[in-house]
Amino acid sequence: MGNSFGNFFKISTWGESHGIAVGVVVDGCPPGLPITRQEIQFELNRRRPGQSDITTTRKENDNLNIMSGVYQGLTLGTPIAMQVLNKEARSKDYDNIKNKFRPSHADYTYYKKFGYRDHRGGGRSSARETIGRVAAGTIAKKILYFANNIQISSYVERIQNIKMPPINFFPSIKEIDASPVRCPNIRIAKAMIKKIKEINLKGDSIGGTIICRIKNIKTGLGCPVFDRLEADLAKAMLSIPATKGFEIGSGFLGTHFLGSKHNDSFFIKKNKIRTKTNRSGGIQGGISNGEEIYFRIAFKPTATIMQPQLTVTQNKKKVKIKNQGRHDPCVLPRAVPIVEAMTALVLVDHWMRQKSQCESFIFK
Amino acid sequence: MGNSFGNFFKISTWGESHGIAVGVVVDGCPPGLPITRQEIQFELNRRRPGQSDITTTRKENDNLNIMSGVYQGLTLGTPIAMQVLNKEARSKDYDNIKNKFRPSHADYTYYKKFGYRDHRGGGRSSARETIGRVAAGTIAKKILYFANNIQISSYVERIQNIKMPPINFFPSIKEIDASPVRCPNIRIAKAMIKKIKEINLKGDSIGGTIICRIKNIKTGLGCPVFDRLEADLAKAMLSIPATKGFEIGSGFLGTHFLGSKHNDSFFIKKNKIRTKTNRSGGIQGGISNGEEIYFRIAFKPTATIMQPQLTVTQNKKKVKIKNQGRHDPCVLPRAVPIVEAMTALVLVDHWMRQKSQCESFIFK
Amino acid sequence: MGNSFGNFFKISTWGESHGIAVGVVVDGCPPGLPITRQEIQFELNRRRPGQSDITTTRKENDNLNIMSGVYQGLTLGTPIAMQVLNKEARSKDYDNIKNKFRPSHADYTYYKKFGYRDHRGGGRSSARETIGRVAAGTIAKKILYFANNIQISSYVERIQNIKMPPINFFPSIKEIDASPVRCPNIRIAKAMIKKIKEINLKGDSIGGTIICRIKNIKTGLGCPVFDRLEADLAKAMLSIPATKGFEIGSGFLGTHFLGSKHNDSFFIKKNKIRTKTNRSGGIQGGISNGEEIYFRIAFKPTATIMQPQLTVTQNKKKVKIKNQGRHDPCVLPRAVPIVEAMTALVLVDHWMRQKSQCESFIFK
Amino acid sequence: MGNSFGNFFKISTWGESHGIAVGVVVDGCPPGLPITRQEIQFELNRRRPGQSDITTTRKENDNLNIMSGVYQGLTLGTPIAMQVLNKEARSKDYDNIKNKFRPSHADYTYYKKFGYRDHRGGGRSSARETIGRVAAGTIAKKILYFANNIQISSYVERIQNIKMPPINFFPSIKEIDASPVRCPNIRIAKAMIKKIKEINLKGDSIGGTIICRIKNIKTGLGCPVFDRLEADLAKAMLSIPATKGFEIGSGFLGTHFLGSKHNDSFFIKKNKIRTKTNRSGGIQGGISNGEEIYFRIAFKPTATIMQPQLTVTQNKKKVKIKNQGRHDPCVLPRAVPIVEAMTALVLVDHWMRQKSQCESFIFK
Repeated sequence: MGNSFGNFFKISTWGESHGIAVGVVVDGCPPGLPITRQEIQFELNRRRPGQSDITTTRKENDNLNIMSGVYQGLTLGTPIAMQVLNKEARSKDYDNIKNKFRPSHADYTYYKKFGYRDHRGGGRSSARETIGRVAAGTIAKKILYFANNIQISSYVERIQNIKMPPINFFPSIKEIDASPVRCPNIRIAKAMIKKIKEINLKGDSIGGTIICRIKNIKTGLGCPVFDRLEADLAKAMLSIPATKGFEIGSGFLGTHFLGSKHNDSFFIKKNKIRTKTNRSGGIQGGISNGEEIYFRIAFKPTATIMQPQLTVTQNKKKVKIKNQGRHDPCVLPRAVPIVEAMTALVLVDHWMRQKSQCESFIFK
Repeated sequence: MGNSFGNFFKISTWGESHGIAVGVVVDGCPPGLPITRQEIQFELNRRRPGQSDITTTRKENDNLNIMSGVYQGLTLGTPIAMQVLNKEARSKDYDNIKNKFRPSHADYTYYKKFGYRDHRGGGRSSARETIGRVAAGTIAKKILYFANNIQISSYVERIQNIKMPPINFFPSIKEIDASPVRCPNIRIAKAMIKKIKEINLKGDSIGGTIICRIKNIKTGLGCPVFDRLEADLAKAMLSIPATKGFEIGSGFLGTHFLGSKHNDSFFIKKNKIRTKTNRSGGIQGGISNGEEIYFRIAFKPTATIMQPQLTVTQNKKKVKIKNQGRHDPCVLPRAVPIVEAMTALVLVDHWMRQKSQCESFIFK
Repeated sequence: MGNSFGNFFKISTWGESHGIAVGVVVDGCPPGLPITRQEIQFELNRRRPGQSDITTTRKENDNLNIMSGVYQGLTLGTPIAMQVLNKEARSKDYDNIKNKFRPSHADYTYYKKFGYRDHRGGGRSSARETIGRVAAGTIAKKILYFANNIQISSYVERIQNIKMPPINFFPSIKEIDASPVRCPNIRIAKAMIKKIKEINLKGDSIGGTIICRIKNIKTGLGCPVFDRLEADLAKAMLSIPATKGFEIGSGFLGTHFLGSKHNDSFFIKKNKIRTKTNRSGGIQGGISNGEEIYFRIAFKPTATIMQPQLTVTQNKKKVKIKNQGRHDPCVLPRAVPIVEAMTALVLVDHWMRQKSQCESFIFK
Repeated sequence: MGNSFGNFFKISTWGESHGIAVGVVVDGCPPGLPITRQEIQFELNRRRPGQSDITTTRKENDNLNIMSGVYQGLTLGTPIAMQVLNKEARSKDYDNIKNKFRPSHADYTYYKKFGYRDHRGGGRSSARETIGRVAAGTIAKKILYFANNIQISSYVERIQNIKMPPINFFPSIKEIDASPVRCPNIRIAKAMIKKIKEINLKGDSIGGTIICRIKNIKTGLGCPVFDRLEADLAKAMLSIPATKGFEIGSGFLGTHFLGSKHNDSFFIKKNKIRTKTNRSGGIQGGISNGEEIYFRIAFKPTATIMQPQLTVTQNKKKVKIKNQGRHDPCVLPRAVPIVEAMTALVLVDHWMRQKSQCESFIFK
């Protein structure tokens, strides 16, 4: 269990990193949406390993197969099954660590939870699992943009201590992908790449933060109690491997302000109710207020490093471990499309919920 | 929708802050658990308004009524319905702000979402809604402790810039509640209280962070993909009113470390597999590893302040607003039992899931 | 678990037959629906014990309390909590059968499932549990009628071997309730009542079938695979105590026809696509086709009889048992509003699902 | 939506009858269960078209591919994805009926629900969708048998008016499959086959009933209110294409009995609490009582017939339609494994629920 996400637009991912394939089934996509394999492949390529010299060298084309739910370019309203074969799974790389628990990986907890595991790669905890999320999220993004003009922009804001300053525009995918590190500030992006390469040479890894912004969002998405929009976003983000934190709007920093300073005053602009500041991050009482939504996610340094480490075996023997699998010294560049995908999934779910529960009824 | 939480141990809260009552229905509690009204009332009293001179002066005894599901001191395995009458709801306090949107409150977003609202108090976005969470969470805590010796300890770590240093013990409720601000460091607690009172005199409000720690947790709780233990905790925490952020283990700070420093090495202690450091925060790959779980939650300064503020009306008129309702200058002391309750709800849910899916089967 | 019903319009019932109260929480009702306590009480009175001389003599006024979710006559879009106090629970009636398992009741299976039970009355398996269903179902019926003119008519078609002939009109509640047995054929109704009274005098009980009909139903409600409209109706009906069977359209009888005879030909009437016959019962491929939906439910004779019966105790002793609790010699008259309520709950759920998934989208 | 079934052992099917493939994802299967492709293929072969001269001549090998979740012959506790390619989909057969609605098929309701459809074959309403159910159900059956010795036996009891008498043994698959019609009474089976062939020659179709029996069932499976075991079975059965009715135990016939005759007396046999008769059908108050569970399902005559029929087009023109697709003159023989699969899915779900909620807890 725990392999599904969403209530109205529901996705279920499947597949181990070293099995035959990984995939996803999308249930709840409305009929009549135009979608092509190319649009989805485009986002998969942004997530793909081996896309640049700062990512893992595992070579996977990640060619998408749409197995059902789309007919002559339009969704049918039936489940959309999509899958990608695992091509370059080098299972032998894992032979020498078969019974060793890699530090800060899921090997040990998996073993304790399930009692039985496929030692090759991370199984379901592998980043390959996120292929299905990105594929499904691309459909969600299409719905949001197509039906409502909602746009999502996610990018790397900080790598360790190298941070870009705030920007006063909403960067496009093109601007973000201009640099392989996916930071739209070219100068900072270069410094980030330099840092990542340095760290990689030492067999080490590095983390940072990604920011995600949403514009043209409708007022009224989200629920007041448990399914607050920020709560669902927090869950979505913390479900991405390697994440350690989430903050919406003013976040942790905002806890240093007084209420008189922190509150967002309402005013009228172009006959619309708006807020002067946006410390709320576009969400008030769990519901979108029409302002830009923005939040940040903390990614830890990759657990896989090339330096030898101390650990133990399944039989409680003390041993040294040295990874030989390919790895990303920094997960953030490839995490950007995953963040966008998960964001889109949360939004489309709440959008459909709102359609069902509030908008469609005219009781007077 | 969005008024339920949990999949195996499921709670559904109901009630508006100025309606007749607020309550909760717990579905999924196993039969035979000893539980008393007093145990639950004890936690409700920790959440209750008017409990000290740094909380709101609204006087509610919050007397709990157990309506079903418990017979002769034991749970029946049937739904446990619990409710508290709203006694001191001063609805008139809200008459002068009937059509005005309070800044950083849910008034405006509610109005836009539902098209119709009870202007008296915050409706479902009021902190009174959390009464049901605390009542249900107390039962969850009882199960965890009774069946597994799992303990949860939550306390105020920082108010604005007044922060307690880390402590090397696991504080008891008695130690935490020794001060009304619920910080177990007495000296720091006094400074916090002084600060809150100062701010309150100015009609202003203040925020901070709460830490939550879990000990004696079993290895194996949590799922690898969407329902990672930290993802469910993040959602639970961000579903509490006034929260702006969540971080698990090393959190945002951990993104400044290199992987070689951040990884938690395994070693053997008393014939058990343990980690030397605990930057993972007790969770690896979404699953508990047996180490202490700890996370932090950011609470913004209370949106209700006594200073006049600029805002607009439902008819888009610019107006001044001055709250007259009673309020908490700082929500953190009363939020402590809510954090514990939500934490217990997440844990008991995953514990039951684990029982269902992994533990009970002996296939060999 | 298993105390909730519905996905979009979700109800959760709670309460034991001899506890303090029974109730329900409705989550998902759209805002702005006009609803009064009186409308709901009207249906509760149709379900109430002691309403006529062919029902149990337990006297319960079943006065409804709406605890939340409705403000000034309109729903708020928040959970609607409703409850009814148990007044005349004569628990002493059950003292002499404390450890005896009543034949064809849930006493034994409860004991085996939960290991612990409240021996007074049927606990959750009591018909009192259905109070919450009827209260929630009345709101569902209101939505269906108010928004779509959908009408539901349910009545007793057969008591044992006394069966009414088919009728060519759609009977109103007034026509159905003209007789306390709730059969709209007055002559047959009288024969049914006579039979029930005869049986009752002998301390025995009797069963029969209820038919339920739905008109003005929209085309397009229901799903093609698991959540077929008839599948959800079947579950809803079989969840009512004392039911043994369900058939839609031509039902079991239809299995004697050949396909050429059984198929419903399409034709055009008043510029609408209609079927000439209606053996499908208004549902094709799990989805409503706009024709009248009709189905039948089999109710067994009440398990509680006043004659002595052989049974065993918890300690596996052979004993005689003689019930002293009050009971209905025939459950069908009081089951009519329950059938309607459950039908309405299924329909409104699929109606909201359709709004969310298909209708609201204009992708072209 | 509506493409998933189960709460604890959850399956999601996907795929159109004339798309690339059909498949299923099983989420919630416990780890460590031995399962082979052959075991599943065996059941798929029982469902396969073209298996005998009384089924459709569409030739599909229905070769199963297990894509994930099984490693070295044991389940991993992760999602099990399985799929079958569509080989002999003769889409051209449907060209001449592209805009015509086939009587008693889902063509019209699909069109009205989704607004857009794949006219080739039945899409999701095709019996090909049930491949995923049978594959998943086989795993469920394995769990039931492996862990609890629970056995399910389903067979054709009646074709139109040709009915087998009750039998006093529990037939094995071998005994059932001895005849292609899947009736374990050889003499009656021959008469059934003769009848089906006669009907088929006339281009017509025929229906009947299937009985399903479960033995060695544990006491305590099922819930008292909405998720009664018979309610979940009813939904499962009515979700199978071409079903029109469901009855448990004494069923519709039982409504003709008096309570004194219908009640099942308890007695002691081999130190176990048993019932003398079994009109309850093994379920009391929604919960299994340990006796054999048995229920019947009504299947209508196949909607596809080879005779010309009157119908209308999408543009509301009156036309004649003559099917050219291949079809089964009688669906029952191939429905037997589907009935078993759905039964197993319901039982395993309740078994896991029971593990989670009642059995695993020792509170004393």
